[in-house]
Amino acid sequence: MSAYLDSLRWNSDGLVAVIAQHIDTGEVLMQAYADRNAICETLQTGLATFYSRSRRERWCKGETSGNFIRVSRVFADCDKDSIIFLGDPIGPACHTGAKTCWFAEAEVGADGGVSSAGRHEHHADHSPATTLYALERTIAQRRAEMGQQQPEGTKPSWTARLLSNPELLCKKVREEAGELCQTLEAGEGAERAASEMADLLYHSMVLLNLQGVPMEEVMRVLRKRFGTSGIEEKASRAAKQ
Amino acid sequence: MSAYLDSLRWNSDGLVAVIAQHIDTGEVLMQAYADRNAICETLQTGLATFYSRSRRERWCKGETSGNFIRVSRVFADCDKDSIIFLGDPIGPACHTGAKTCWFAEAEVGADGGVSSAGRHEHHADHSPATTLYALERTIAQRRAEMGQQQPEGTKPSWTARLLSNPELLCKKVREEAGELCQTLEAGEGAERAASEMADLLYHSMVLLNLQGVPMEEVMRVLRKRFGTSGIEEKASRAAKQ
Ligand SMILES: [Zn+2]
Ligand SMILES: [Zn+2]
Ligand SMILES: [Zn+2]
Ligand SMILES: [Zn+2]
Ligand SMILES: [Zn+2]
Ligand SMILES: [Zn+2]
Ligand SMILES: [Zn+2]
Ligand SMILES: [Zn+2]
Ligand SMILES: [Zn+2]
Repeated sequence: MSAYLDSLRWNSDGLVAVIAQHIDTGEVLMQAYADRNAICETLQTGLATFYSRSRRERWCKGETSGNFIRVSRVFADCDKDSIIFLGDPIGPACHTGAKTCWFAEAEVGADGGVSSAGRHEHHADHSPATTLYALERTIAQRRAEMGQQQPEGTKPSWTARLLSNPELLCKKVREEAGELCQTLEAGEGAERAASEMADLLYHSMVLLNLQGVPMEEVMRVLRKRFGTSGIEEKASRAAKQ
Repeated sequence: MSAYLDSLRWNSDGLVAVIAQHIDTGEVLMQAYADRNAICETLQTGLATFYSRSRRERWCKGETSGNFIRVSRVFADCDKDSIIFLGDPIGPACHTGAKTCWFAEAEVGADGGVSSAGRHEHHADHSPATTLYALERTIAQRRAEMGQQQPEGTKPSWTARLLSNPELLCKKVREEAGELCQTLEAGEGAERAASEMADLLYHSMVLLNLQGVPMEEVMRVLRKRFGTSGIEEKASRAAKQ
């Protein structure tokens, strides 16, 4: 352990920057700092541990709130002064109760002015969603709008039509799967295959929305099925020996 | 802009920490620092701009290498001292030529000892892949192994069987799409739906591997189709006015 810790580049306060990232969704959960003991403890216990610069002490995230982050993998960057904890959070990562700490988005107006949106701490929809999860939110938004009175003459979106017609939706999912297969069978090329996979993903995600299944849950299933053992399992195995 | 910049919590050196994240894959690309002007420039130009503590100057990432990061969205964390640039990188983000800066993984041995794996800077396979991309790598690995001599008596993995039998693969993709639809049609419940979506995703990704299509490309297609306009577009619109 000591040689590994020596290989990291500690700043003048003896700290490295740490980014905790959700292993399933890729969400950046929180950013903090760690001293040697915090990195060592994280690797040994599999629970994200940091050093608080204000309280001047080591803290295991979740030790008071119960919202631990189970860390599977630990990475150092090219110059060894920034660490990623890739892990699975139990509950919200932010002390405000938000899922991640980044919920305040800078909004650039048409005039070039900048304001800050999303002060509503518990609204997950202001956090930095990557493409797949942004699409999931868009679908959820269409669903929410369906319950609201629309101005007369408003044409329902394609997503809303799919959401309100399970038969059409299932027909589309089967059709898109067929079109994806066709790209291979007929050698239609990579661009077409990417486009058909996008079709299939989108329609499947509408179907998942109808059943209340978040993509995060699908990722969890895939991780349990295909995941290699992380430091947590290794740490527990070492403890049993 | 000035009010927004005032709302951030600058450290004693006048800097905030910045994390650049890939908008499509969720990969954390690099971590650096920014001063007021760097944040302001990023919001105005849509290109990730930082402050180098060693060179004591502002730098637009890519200005010498050409590897810019196009920033779509900017977020501040709960206590306003850490920023996320969510964007699309043009080329590798790390100066070593690696896609991201985090390619050195800590490996915990069965004895509890820790070593650092992945000094091969250009090997993307040591970077912190989240579940979907870890699965993509596993499939690619199975494909690579197919070209290698296997010890006699080794049974090919299910993935290898699918990869070598396009007919079986397409049959499975269609079948899994049907099973996913069935969960809705027969009201089989959320757990079953998540499991069938995992099946469908996995089999589709094997099919994409055969056609040389990375999931990143599928995400790009989805973003172009469903993405809302980011600061880049707004900045260019403002410039035109
Ligand atoms: Zn660094
Ligand atoms: Zn927070
Ligand atoms: Zn809100
Ligand atoms: Zn299609
Ligand atoms: Zn902070
Ligand atoms: Zn890319
Ligand atoms: Zn780097
Ligand atoms: Zn390697
Ligand atoms: Zn199935």
